[in-house]
Parts: sequence; C-alpha cells; structure tokens
Amino acid sequence: MTLRVGIAGLGTVGAGVVKVLRSKRRELVARAGRDIEIVAASARDSAKDRGIDLSGIAWEKDALSLAARSDVDVVVELVGGEEGVARQLVERALNAHKHVVTANKALLAHHGKALAASSERNGVALKFEAAICGGIPIVKALRESLISYDIGAVRGILNGTCNFILTQMESTGRAFADVLTEAQALGYAEADPTLDVGGGDTAHKLCLLASLAFGTEPDLDGIELTGIQGVRPADIAFAREFGFRIKLLGVARRTKDGIEQRVHPAMVRAGTPLAAVGSSFNAVVADAGEAGPFFFEGRGAGQSPTASAVVSDLVDVARGALGPAFGRPAAELVAPRRLGSDIRSSAYYLRFQVLDVPGVMAEISRHLANEKISIESMLQRGRAPGEPVAIVMITHDASHSAVVRALKAIAASDKVSEAPCMIPMEPV
Amino acid sequence: MTLRVGIAGLGTVGAGVVKVLRSKRRELVARAGRDIEIVAASARDSAKDRGIDLSGIAWEKDALSLAARSDVDVVVELVGGEEGVARQLVERALNAHKHVVTANKALLAHHGKALAASSERNGVALKFEAAICGGIPIVKALRESLISYDIGAVRGILNGTCNFILTQMESTGRAFADVLTEAQALGYAEADPTLDVGGGDTAHKLCLLASLAFGTEPDLDGIELTGIQGVRPADIAFAREFGFRIKLLGVARRTKDGIEQRVHPAMVRAGTPLAAVGSSFNAVVADAGEAGPFFFEGRGAGQSPTASAVVSDLVDVARGALGPAFGRPAAELVAPRRLGSDIRSSAYYLRFQVLDVPGVMAEISRHLANEKISIESMLQRGRAPGEPVAIVMITHDASHSAVVRALKAIAASDKVSEAPCMIPMEPV
Repeated sequence: MTLRVGIAGLGTVGAGVVKVLRSKRRELVARAGRDIEIVAASARDSAKDRGIDLSGIAWEKDALSLAARSDVDVVVELVGGEEGVARQLVERALNAHKHVVTANKALLAHHGKALAASSERNGVALKFEAAICGGIPIVKALRESLISYDIGAVRGILNGTCNFILTQMESTGRAFADVLTEAQALGYAEADPTLDVGGGDTAHKLCLLASLAFGTEPDLDGIELTGIQGVRPADIAFAREFGFRIKLLGVARRTKDGIEQRVHPAMVRAGTPLAAVGSSFNAVVADAGEAGPFFFEGRGAGQSPTASAVVSDLVDVARGALGPAFGRPAAELVAPRRLGSDIRSSAYYLRFQVLDVPGVMAEISRHLANEKISIESMLQRGRAPGEPVAIVMITHDASHSAVVRALKAIAASDKVSEAPCMIPMEPV
Repeated sequence: MTLRVGIAGLGTVGAGVVKVLRSKRRELVARAGRDIEIVAASARDSAKDRGIDLSGIAWEKDALSLAARSDVDVVVELVGGEEGVARQLVERALNAHKHVVTANKALLAHHGKALAASSERNGVALKFEAAICGGIPIVKALRESLISYDIGAVRGILNGTCNFILTQMESTGRAFADVLTEAQALGYAEADPTLDVGGGDTAHKLCLLASLAFGTEPDLDGIELTGIQGVRPADIAFAREFGFRIKLLGVARRTKDGIEQRVHPAMVRAGTPLAAVGSSFNAVVADAGEAGPFFFEGRGAGQSPTASAVVSDLVDVARGALGPAFGRPAAELVAPRRLGSDIRSSAYYLRFQVLDVPGVMAEISRHLANEKISIESMLQRGRAPGEPVAIVMITHDASHSAVVRALKAIAASDKVSEAPCMIPMEPV
C-alpha cells in the first residue's frame, strides 16, 4: 500500500523532499490515503552531510539503477539537464511502468511530448509542478482548473534570479554586472548565470506554460529570446520617468494567425500586478477573455517551495490522481503554428546613444518615419560636453520588423555611438 | 463510460455549466478520458428561455428526484441555501452513492464536516471549487498544492459585491447607500444585499478556507463579523491620506493560542497586493512562513468563472480524482480552539465625531490612556461652525478588548455626537 519512492539528486530540493516527507508524514498519509516512503536514493556523494538521515534508504551509485528497482513505484528526478542521466532515467523509469515526478524544465521543454506519450503508453503519471515557478501551483491550475476558458495569453515573471537582479538595479541604480556579482555571492545566481540572465530558463518554463494553456506541444525553438544583460540603469531610470518598470517577461499569446512566444525585458506599467512583483518572486497572469485575468504570485525557487511542489505531485500520484502530463493526451498536442515576427506589433521603448552634433535628431526621425513609426513621447536629458547623449522615446504601436529595420538603419549612422536599445511595452 | 450529470438549478451558473459542457465537449473528453453529459435537470421553471437547448435532458419537477435517478452518477447542486432542498438533495445524493459538485458555500459552512463524512462513507466525491472565489482555483490550491506548508494565515477579499461598492465609494466619494442602490440596478448586488454587505457571505467562504488551510472543521460561529454598512466616504478619504485603502477582508490566522477568524472592513496599506484588488475581483493571500506569501487574484463571481469551476470539479470526478472534500478525512477535522478576542491585538483606525467644544480631545485622550492605547498619528480637518468635527487617529498595536472598552467609555461622553468608528489595520 505504501507508495515507494526512488529519488535521484539530493541537493537543496532533494534534501527538502526527504525532510517534508518525514516531518509531514502523518498529515500526508491522511491526505494521500497511504504512506509515501523514500526507499532508494542516488546522488553524487553518499557521504555528504545534508542534514538528513539516510539510513534505511538504499543507495544507488548509478541513478539509472533506480528505474530498475522492483521496490520503486515512482522516481523523483532532480538531476537536471535535458540530456544525459536525467533523460535516460526518466525514459527508463516510464518504460519500467514507474511514475515520474520531476523539477526538470529543460528536459520537458525539449522532450516533453515524447515523454508524455511514453507515460501514457506505460500507464503511469509524469508530473512536473516543481519545474515552473516552484511553489506557485500554476501547472495544476492550467492543467486542471482553468480548463473551460479559451486562454488567450500567459505572461509571467518566471525567473527569480533575473527579477532579483532587475529589482536590485532599480533600487540601487547599480549596473547589471555589479548586481550579478553580488547575486552570485549571495547564492541568488549560479556561477554560470547564462541560463538565467540570458532568458533560457524563462524560455523553458514559458513553452511548458504555453503547452498547458493552448494544448500545443512545447515549442522551445519557437521562442524569441532576449536576456537582461543589455538592460542599463539608465533604461530603468527612464522607465520610471515614463511610469513603467522593466521586468524579464515570458509571454505566450494565441492569435488567429498563430502562437507567439517571446522572452525579453519588457516595460510593464507601474500599478499593474506584474510590475509590483519584487525581489526573487515569480508571478503568472493568465488571460481568460471575459472571465478576466487570473494572477498568481509566490516564491519561484528555494528549498521549501520547490520541495513542496514535488511532494504535492507525489500525493497526487499516491491518491491515484494521474491523468495526462499536459492535461490532454500527448497525441492531441499539435505543433503550434508560429506567429511570424513580421505580423507582431507593439509599442516600443527606444534608446539611442548619439553624438551631440547637429542633424542627429533629424536623421533618427527620418528613419523612423520611413518605416511609419510614430512617436508617443520623447525624452532627452543631461550631457557632459563631448559625451554621447541618450535620446529616449516611446513609440505608438508599430510593426516589430519595421522597428528592427529602422534601428538597423539608425545604427549605421556615424552620429550614433552604439547599437540602439529596444524594449517592448507590455500592457499588462 | 460517460459521466452522467443531474443538475439542480439552471440560473446563470447552471446555464453556464450546460453551455461549457457542450461548447468544450471534445476538449473535455480529451482531458477527462470520457464524456460528461447532462442527463437530467431540475429548476423552478421548465419553460423559461435560458439560451440553452434542454431537449434530450430529462426534467424533474422535484430536484430531490435527481438523487434517486439510476442514470445519474453525479449531482450538481446549484439551488443554494444551507437548509431545505439544497441540503436534502446533497444528503440524498451522497447516500445514493452519487458524487456531488456544489457552489453552495452556506451549506458547506454549516454542514461541511457531516457532508464530507457522508461522502467518504459512501465512497463518492464532494467538490466545491465554485463555492469560493468563483474562478480562482483556491480550493484546489489549498487542498492539493500548498499541502507541505504550515499555513499561518489566509486573508482574502472574498465578496465581489462589497469590493465593487468600496471601490466605487472610493472613486466617486459617494455614500454607501447611494452606491449600493446603483450596484443593485447594475445587477452587482442582490435585491436583499444583507448576506453580501453584512459580511455573511465572506464568513461562509472564510470558514471553508480556514478548514482547508488548517485542517480544522468549518467553524462559522467562531467568526467575528462586521459588514461594510458603516464605512463612510470620510473613512475612505482619511484612509487614503494615511496611505491605506479600506477593503472588506476575511482573515483566518493560526496562533499558538488558537485560531482567529474575523470578517470586517480593514485598512490595507496601498502598494500591497490586496490593496490593488479593484472592482468586483476577489483575491486570497496564503502565508506559508519562510516559503513566503502566495497570492491569487481573479474574478470571484459571474457565469463564466463559476461555471468553469463547476466544470473543473466534474472533470476531476470523471478522471477519478476524488479524495476527501477538505483534503483530509472528515474524522480528522477537529473543532478549532478559538482565539479569545481579549488576546487579539492590532493597530486601529479610529474616528470620533465630536462637538467643537473645549476639552473634547482631553477626554478622548484620557480614555485611551486609561486603556494604555497610544496614538501613532492623528488628523483633524475642516468643520462648518456648529457642525460636529471628525477626529481621526491611528493607534499603535493595542489590545482589541482595550480599544472596545475605551470606545465604549468615549461614546458615553456628551461631547461625542455618534458612536466612534473602529477599523483594524491589516499589515498585508
């Protein structure tokens, strides 16, 4: 009757899962109707002190062996990475008719449909609440609750590291590189921060949210990606003057012309729920047409939220609440038609660093006019003699590709001292 | 294989359920793994035009007959009210081994534990997502997702009518009675608004949230209740000057001395998520200790959100995701120890309408000092000669019962022209 768990990976999250299953055992039995017990584990170092007692838990040197154990009903995969051990372990576990609970967004972003199909063939569950926004139950909400709506868009602040960095840049006025170094020292950013600050982690999560919301297969390659490395303190300060804040958003929209997925720093209007999301918090807005927007906010990472998400999936499995990984049979997840970027339009924040010479404004204006881009508001501010000047503007709604063409033409001018900066306005 | 539904009540929500089950049929089959079909219905008037085709659906004059039909697997109860037909129908349906899906918060607030026990005895589900905050999946979140935390408090804006009225009073400066009349004309408030504006509806929902969060039985009688009828435009204006907004909150807190449940207008600090909840929207904050607060916001009422919540419960039932109504077996739901109001403390907003005569401030101050209540800030503003003057203050943290005693003493003064107003500050 006990649900027997084999766990691969005993880092912060894995150790947290062990702790919660023990400290909450009585209550979880009441909820699940049966006991949930860790019977086997695998991690790089069996001797490391994790603050948990591993006696009574079988140790597997090779994580893949967990999939072969006859005393394991469900494998918890916390190894990470879209290939290698993680992928093999999940594939083998499903094929051995073992349920899988994972926090691995990269794996699912790349192989989600195939793994979901495998879980259905083998009659077991594949659950991944911990993969997106840690403690916010957004996977379950989209998979089981908001199912009667035609969800038109999902927008989210999906990466706590980026939101922490942007929030710090905003409150201190310091540069990206400085704040990143500090975040690394505090443990809020990885030694190699590329996946976070480059937007890749947000993209992994976004394509899973889009799949859950729209019933399409996860389409990681369909995501346009811009990280936060190019955001300057000046942009944050100008944003504030215009009544906006800069947030790294993942946005997935369903339109009649296809599905749009993009990850980029965006100007979010102050006073909207997303703009108020500070520090390392995550949040998701799901647009449900006339039923209005739904807003979810909470901690997206850390031991307690992520471990709790894993445990909630384990309790679902123990209760027999299985069901398809993405809410619909894998065979029904169709490849999304991608919205061409030539169809996309938005208002944009533009910043030009220009030389303080006559005719520069005329030249910029001419290139924008050529592409039929009109200006809603403009700002030019302070300059030291001989220094480049920042010209900042917000456009009216304009075609994305037209703006790209105009900026390319402007960048070629000898009056412009560096590549122009372009940040979409996101009306949320 | 089809899940066969008998539905009692075909008002806005019931008709919405019929519409969604039909318009989304193909998708719901994919999600549930089987068809969900309405086979029988009961409502006051069989001839009324509801914009739905009822042909092929058996009509029962007596709703109770739905519980006796051998071709019904699940009864959807949308009759409303804590006694009478609604209660009998749900009891009979459970005893006839039929699942029950209901939007009836009053019924569950009064009889939730007994009905949950009955559903367990009979091996069927009792689901009520639609009973709290319509489309916000807060029941599922507390029942299945946030289960590893020691939830310390749940705070919510749980009644859309009250939030609409308060938001309108704020934006127009008009009096409660005026705005209520308008809300009734717009269909945002019932002809008899007592249950909404008196806080009773919020109390029904709050005791269910407390039960889900703390594992206690719903304790409606343990809720201290104050409605919004006494909120004046002046209070809203003063609140703004102090940097607050007035919201009708339901608050349930678990403390070492017992569980506190209260419904009252509260001063919520501007800039916090709850303060930003406008119009008829609902929101819930769940405090999860170190895992931080979780925030959920969305439409709490209306056809689409409420019908969608009913449908998500039906899909759960169809998928076989049953489980105990309150997340834990009914037998484990213990009666909560109530926190005595003598132990409660808070900062308070106080308004005194006083006569413009010498010594009035001295008298008020003396009574407050007698009860060891100290003042954080104070405001006295404009007066027409001979008119009563408003003196407004915010206290430091003070014992609830001390404030009540002080206000009683002050009210007895002949220098005070009406009963003082007292609104707790809620630091969310």
